[in-house]
Formats: sequence, structure tokens, C-alpha cells
Amino acid sequence: MLMFDAAIYKERRKALVKKMQEQGAGGIAVFLGNVDAPMNYRDNCFEFRQDSTFLYFWGLNEAGLAASINLENGMECIYGDDVDIDDIIWMGPQSALGEKAETVGVEHTAAAKDFATAVQFALQNDVPVHFLPSGRWANRLKMSEITGTPAATVYDTAPYDEGDDVHSSLELTKAVISLRLIKENCEIEQIDKACDLGVLMHTIGREGCKLGAIEKDIAGAMDGFAITKGWGVSFPTILSQNGQILHGHDHSQTITDGRLLLIDAGLALNNGYCSDFTRTLPCGGKFTQRQREIYDIVADCNELAYTLAAPGVAYLDVHKAVARLMLEHLKELGLVNGNVDEMTEEGIAGMFMPHGLGHNMGLDVHDMEDLGENWVGYDDDQQRSGQLGLGSLRMARRLTPGNVITDEPGIYFIPALWEYFRKHNLDKGFVNFDKLRAYEKFGGIRLEDDLLITENGCRRLGTTRLPIASAEVESVMAANVEK
Amino acid sequence: MLMFDAAIYKERRKALVKKMQEQGAGGIAVFLGNVDAPMNYRDNCFEFRQDSTFLYFWGLNEAGLAASINLENGMECIYGDDVDIDDIIWMGPQSALGEKAETVGVEHTAAAKDFATAVQFALQNDVPVHFLPSGRWANRLKMSEITGTPAATVYDTAPYDEGDDVHSSLELTKAVISLRLIKENCEIEQIDKACDLGVLMHTIGREGCKLGAIEKDIAGAMDGFAITKGWGVSFPTILSQNGQILHGHDHSQTITDGRLLLIDAGLALNNGYCSDFTRTLPCGGKFTQRQREIYDIVADCNELAYTLAAPGVAYLDVHKAVARLMLEHLKELGLVNGNVDEMTEEGIAGMFMPHGLGHNMGLDVHDMEDLGENWVGYDDDQQRSGQLGLGSLRMARRLTPGNVITDEPGIYFIPALWEYFRKHNLDKGFVNFDKLRAYEKFGGIRLEDDLLITENGCRRLGTTRLPIASAEVESVMAANVEK
Repeated sequence: MLMFDAAIYKERRKALVKKMQEQGAGGIAVFLGNVDAPMNYRDNCFEFRQDSTFLYFWGLNEAGLAASINLENGMECIYGDDVDIDDIIWMGPQSALGEKAETVGVEHTAAAKDFATAVQFALQNDVPVHFLPSGRWANRLKMSEITGTPAATVYDTAPYDEGDDVHSSLELTKAVISLRLIKENCEIEQIDKACDLGVLMHTIGREGCKLGAIEKDIAGAMDGFAITKGWGVSFPTILSQNGQILHGHDHSQTITDGRLLLIDAGLALNNGYCSDFTRTLPCGGKFTQRQREIYDIVADCNELAYTLAAPGVAYLDVHKAVARLMLEHLKELGLVNGNVDEMTEEGIAGMFMPHGLGHNMGLDVHDMEDLGENWVGYDDDQQRSGQLGLGSLRMARRLTPGNVITDEPGIYFIPALWEYFRKHNLDKGFVNFDKLRAYEKFGGIRLEDDLLITENGCRRLGTTRLPIASAEVESVMAANVEK
Repeated sequence: MLMFDAAIYKERRKALVKKMQEQGAGGIAVFLGNVDAPMNYRDNCFEFRQDSTFLYFWGLNEAGLAASINLENGMECIYGDDVDIDDIIWMGPQSALGEKAETVGVEHTAAAKDFATAVQFALQNDVPVHFLPSGRWANRLKMSEITGTPAATVYDTAPYDEGDDVHSSLELTKAVISLRLIKENCEIEQIDKACDLGVLMHTIGREGCKLGAIEKDIAGAMDGFAITKGWGVSFPTILSQNGQILHGHDHSQTITDGRLLLIDAGLALNNGYCSDFTRTLPCGGKFTQRQREIYDIVADCNELAYTLAAPGVAYLDVHKAVARLMLEHLKELGLVNGNVDEMTEEGIAGMFMPHGLGHNMGLDVHDMEDLGENWVGYDDDQQRSGQLGLGSLRMARRLTPGNVITDEPGIYFIPALWEYFRKHNLDKGFVNFDKLRAYEKFGGIRLEDDLLITENGCRRLGTTRLPIASAEVESVMAANVEK
């Protein structure tokens, strides 16, 4: 696994301590790495995935580690166990923990069990202990056991307050987010690399999209590539002719002429950095007139977000601008009618795009999501909307150079959602349901790129962009038919 | 996913109740299905894997379910939630829980939250509640919360005893093991299918074993095939020229002439049934003289186990017979000297094969391992050995028709283990360390087939056997060089 120089990790930890001090937070900050996650039984585990924040500050990509940093004197320690003869038989010779710690600039190491002791000693002496929430059940249980707080509440992130119940720390959460939100050059290099591989992964998908193929054959080939060239998929591959199902993980259908295949897939490098692209392909090689109309709207929306994304612009406003453009186009098709500004305000776009325009991306494909979607994606003065679609927006913040975000508008035709809108009178009379009926079996279209916010605007990550214009897509798809 | 007829599941549950009654166990038996397992953050999960025992009795292959069966009146209930509009947007329309329950012959359903209520109501009324341990942290935490027992002890399996702390049930553990140990015909059909696909998966591996290839390219292609044709790998693929590292998941090396590539890999079908094969290939296509000598010993050992495995024979004794044959051959090579029976007794084989001869296989590749290795693999009158190698034997029982086990002897040259044997005087003077030195960089060889115990002996699972004889392996490997 590529790791950065020790200096990078030291610099990050130094910046973290500074951010904590700025918030007046003292005591210690502790970090729990991941353990292996059992598939079906305890010793049969999924491919190991380290906690992303642990990777970011402590670099070591192996199971069973923890770390602490004293926010007052900066003393750092990594906790873990050296190998015994059994480990050598099963996993081969390993370097000592001390040597590993040195590669990330950490001087002190201690046995794994000393982590609990250190945390408990601090708590007993009224020294604040700052820790982060984790989506891993094992970590929740461990922090619950160590701190004596129920598992149900130990990750209820809140400001540290003396005398309070022990819980995950808002100060640490905010400090970590403020650092990880701005990608360093060494990180951008890795994300570009993940995107280059992600483009190749999607190319395998596109080349596999031939009439008669089974969706799973295509998805399996893409996933195999991700395993070969990286850690694996950055999230379970979405590949379905039912593009209107947002997380369509059923891959059992046969590629059929006249349908659309939506592929939303990405790759994680061995060091964790991700890509995340979506393309929607015409299965027989050519879009129908109706498909092309909708496709071109989505492509337009994708382009608009790219045009608007720049430092100082709130991505919340970009989402709204995209929603407006989408409704404008849908009005041209007669699927909605009325004043476009009003229907944008009323959230009508959410019936067509019931998800947000994009999210942060980095070591996690939804970067830092476990730290709390609102802390990660919203500025202090921003409110999360209650509307369908806009309410799912994971990244609303005013953009800053170094942000890495996705640009992924989509239009989906979901009859159950039409019923829902009707039943709850959410359509406010703007929707032409009669005309919609013709789209009942249309499916859905999503088009997604990854953007880096630069000093003056943004750039798409990765060297080459996946074909996106409808004519260009038809042109590359022609090869699938000829073969 | 292929599911069996409702009658199969009903029959199994009926048999389970009978086994519980035979042990005098009353009350209720409860089963917790799995939830999704987070990769890096809570909503980014690995491919869903259902709890195997839940699959076995309740058939439904989705997250968030539980089930109960009243051991006195046989009343059965499946607990889970029907979908809401959000679920439909993200996962598509679903059938109602009641309809799903019907497909596995269960009449009653209830909301997911009612599971806790049912368990707590029983406990409050002194009704015994029997449940199984699980390797999943989420399940441990959930059973701990529901029963009010610390997570650390809730899975300390013991006989039910009134007034005791609540813990996983030995009665239920034994009843489940006794059923799952004997594979039904419908299960054997599925395992045969998994083995046929496992052979194809290994064939991809063998064909990829070309000089200059990277191990990871080969492993990724195999894993991609497993994802395409089934659920995925039945365990993380072991593929390494360092075959002496038993679980070698580092795949970074280049295939190099003169080395041996050990591939231990299997596939799980969508319904959970597994395969598990190992082959060891000469990287340049031809074994050296020294490699062939060791290889042929391992192949001989594999054949001996196949010859001996039959109803009434303890697999513990088969392991010992294999260890004896191995030492006999190693003595011919001069690597050990002395009385073969004595050195077998002293466990000298463990220095060359520090693992057991095989394990049960079925819905789990180490079948039911979470229920407790000793409960699963040892008859009541059998003791687990303390010796290295034999002590790792997971299946020692007297064999019964319907058992599915692996036959996987190996010989490994692990210098760190030689030191360990020397230091602790475990070699008892039987080992010729001077001669061993020439094998320092040899690596390791393992050869594994899957066996079904039949009325009269056993048969190898799968239609075709992977090439195993050294000459045959060289002959098929010739194709890799010519290409």
C-alpha cells in the first residue's frame, strides 16, 4: 500500500491539535482503528478496511490498532500487539509495531490492551477524552465497554462537557472534518489515480453492455477489475436496467434492446482513495427519441453544476440551480407546467430526482459520512431542507479550493413516487400526470463526475472523461454492436 | 436466489423442535438474521451475507429479520419491517413480509421491534429463551441489549439453567449442529454446483499463472468470476508464491520461474453453499526435482484421506494416518529420522503441516464455526489435542453419510517454526535441521478437495476434479507457456 511520508501524517496531527486548541478543547484525542469484519463467522472476514480517519492521521492499514494524542503536550502513541508464532504461521513475518509507528512519525507504542487503560485512566482523572463515532459495530461496542456508556448513546456526538455522560466529541468531529474536507495535493494525486482506474472500470462495463448479456456478468467483470487494480469497489456496484431504483443491486436481468443501463460504480485504491462515476447507456447502442430527450436534460444539468461549482458558491445553491434547469426542460416536454421558479421552490424536482446533487468524496466515497452528514456537509448557517431530493443533499457547503465533490444529477420515473406525491398533494398541481404515464417503464438516468474545487472554479478528476454527450455515447457503443 | 420449497424449511424446523424436546428443552428458540455489515461507514456496506443458520431454517436472504419458534406448540413467527416510500425509491418495490414468510412455510409475522418484546416477555415470565452465538458484532450487541446481559458473556454458550445469567444455548447449538452436519440431497446438489463453479474459478487461476503476471491480477480475475457466477468468494482468496504463509493475502508478487503458486479459493452461491479447493502450481510449468518430491507426498496424503474417509471412521484418525504417511515419506527424503510411529505420536508432522486435515463445509466454508469449533467438530468422547497441527483440526468426528468435509494436507517450510520447535525442544531429535536448510525458500504446498461421506465411503464433490497428479498438472500448465 502506498503510504505518504511520515512528515505528512505529523503535519496533519499537528494541525489537528491546533484546531482542537482553537476550540478550547484539552485532554486527549483517541482514535480506534477497525478490526476485521466477519462475513458469516468470526474468522471468515471481508477484505480488511481501515477506519478512514485512522488512515488519515495514523497511516497504518491493519486491523486491531488504536492511537492517542495528548492535546496539551502533543505526545502520541499507537496501540497494538506484536505478532506471535501463530501469527507468523498464518500471516507471515511482520515488522514490529515500533518500526511501523516510525514510518508514520510516531515515537511511542504500547500493547493493544493499554488503550482501554489509557482512556479509563484519563476519565477517572477528569481528563477530557475526545473520540469519534464509527459505523462499525465492533468499535461502538468497544468504546461503550471502555467508557462504561451504553452502546446506544456512546456515539451521540455533542460538545465535551464536564460531568456529562461520555460520548463522541463534537470538537474532534469538527476539527477532523475541517481538515479532511480540504484535500492535500498528495491526496488529489491519489484521487486522480482512482478516477483513472474508475474510468477503465466503467469502460469494461460499457464494453460488456451487449444485448443478451446478464447484468451480473458485467458487474462481476467490473468488480474483478477493482479487486485487481485496487482494494476493490468503493461501494457496491449499482448496475441495472431499472435505473429508477437508486441503489439497484439486483443484477439478474438480461441486457435488452431499447432499455437503458445505469452503471454507478467506483474503485477504492489500496490506500483508501476513491472514485465514483455514473453513466447511463442505451442497451442496443442507440437512444430512442424519448430517452435522448431525458438524457440530454440530465447531461445539461451535469454540465451546469460543473460550470457553477467554484469557491464561495454554496453547493446547496448549485443543487437548486440544477433543479430549476431540470424543471425548465421538463416543462418543455410538457411533463410539468406552471411557473418554474415556483415549482423549484415547492420541490417538484424531487419527484424526478429524489436525491442530492452530490457529496464529498475522498477516503470514503461519501467522505466522513459516519462523523455525521450535517456536520460534514453543512455550514453552520445552513439548514437542511425537509423536501424530498434537496433534503437528501449531503454536501451543501460553500465550496473551498481542495473540496472534492460529486456532480450527479439524475431523472427517474418512479410510479410509486408519483402516487406518493399525489396522495400527499406534494405535486401542487404542477405535474402533468397524464403525460407521465408514457414514462412508466422508462427507468432512470444519472450522470456523475467527480470534481475538484480549484482556486478559480473546478476541474473534473481523472485524466480522461468518460464519454457523456449522447452522440458520443452512441458512437462508442457502436463498437459493442459490430463485435 | 434459489430457495428450497417451503416443505424443506418446515421439515427442518420440525426436526429441530424434536431435537430440542429430546434434550428436555422447552420455551422458545429465537434466531437473529444478519444486518448489513459496514465497510467504512454505516451506509456503505459489504455485499449482504445472511446468517447461515437463519438461511437454513428460515430461508429468507435479506437484512434485518429475526424469527422465533415455540418449542411447545410449534408456533413460528418471522419479525421484520415492510418497506416504506424511501425503501421503494432506493431499493425498488418489495413483496410484503407476510408473502415472503409464506414462501418458507411460516404463518405469522410481526414488526422487527416485536422481536425484542417477545424475548423480554418470555424472560420476564421465566420461559427459557434459546439462541445461538454469532460472530457478527451487531448481533452480539443486539442480544446483549435485548437480554440485558453484557456483550462479553451473552455468547458464552452453556446449558440452559433457570436463574442463570442469560447466554447462548448449548441445547440449541447441539440441535442445530446435529441437523446441519448431515447434508440433505437438495443441499448436496447445491454444493456440487458450487464445486463445479469452484473448478472453473481455479481454472481461471491456473490459466492466469504465467511468468510475469502479478498475483493480484490472477486473484482479481478469480474473485470477479465468483461475483459473476455466485455471491462471491466463500473466503478471501489465498493466492501466493509464499505458500508457507497459510493465509497469504498479499498478492503483490510477480509470477517467477521456479517458484510454486499456492491457490486456495472457493466460491459461495447466492444461496450460501460453498466450495473450497487448493492447488499448488509450478510457476514456469515444470516442477523441479525437489518440488516434485514434496508435491507427490502431499498428493499421496490427499489420496490417503480420500481412501480412508468412510462412515464410522473418525476424521481424527484420518488426520493421524496422513501425518504418519507424511513423516514416512519425509524420512525417505532424510528430513526426519527415527521411528515413524513415535514421531507421529510426538506431533513432528505439525512442524510441516501446522494445520488440521480438514473441516466441515456447507453454508459456511468452515461450517457452523461460530457455534463453537469443538461442538461442531468433536464427538462427545473426543478430546482436542494440544499439539501444533493436530490441535488445529476442526473436524475430528466419526464420519456419517451426509457429512461434507475438506481433505487438505499440506507441507510447508517455515524457518520461524523450525526455530520455535528447536527452542521449545518440540522436535525431540527427530528432525534433520541441516538437511532442512536447503528448503528455506521452498515455500509450501497444499492440495485440497471436498468430500461427501456416502453410505460406503466418500466421493469427491463436483463433476470434474481439478488436475492434481504432478504429471497432469505439468501437462495442463504447458498451455500457459505455449500461449
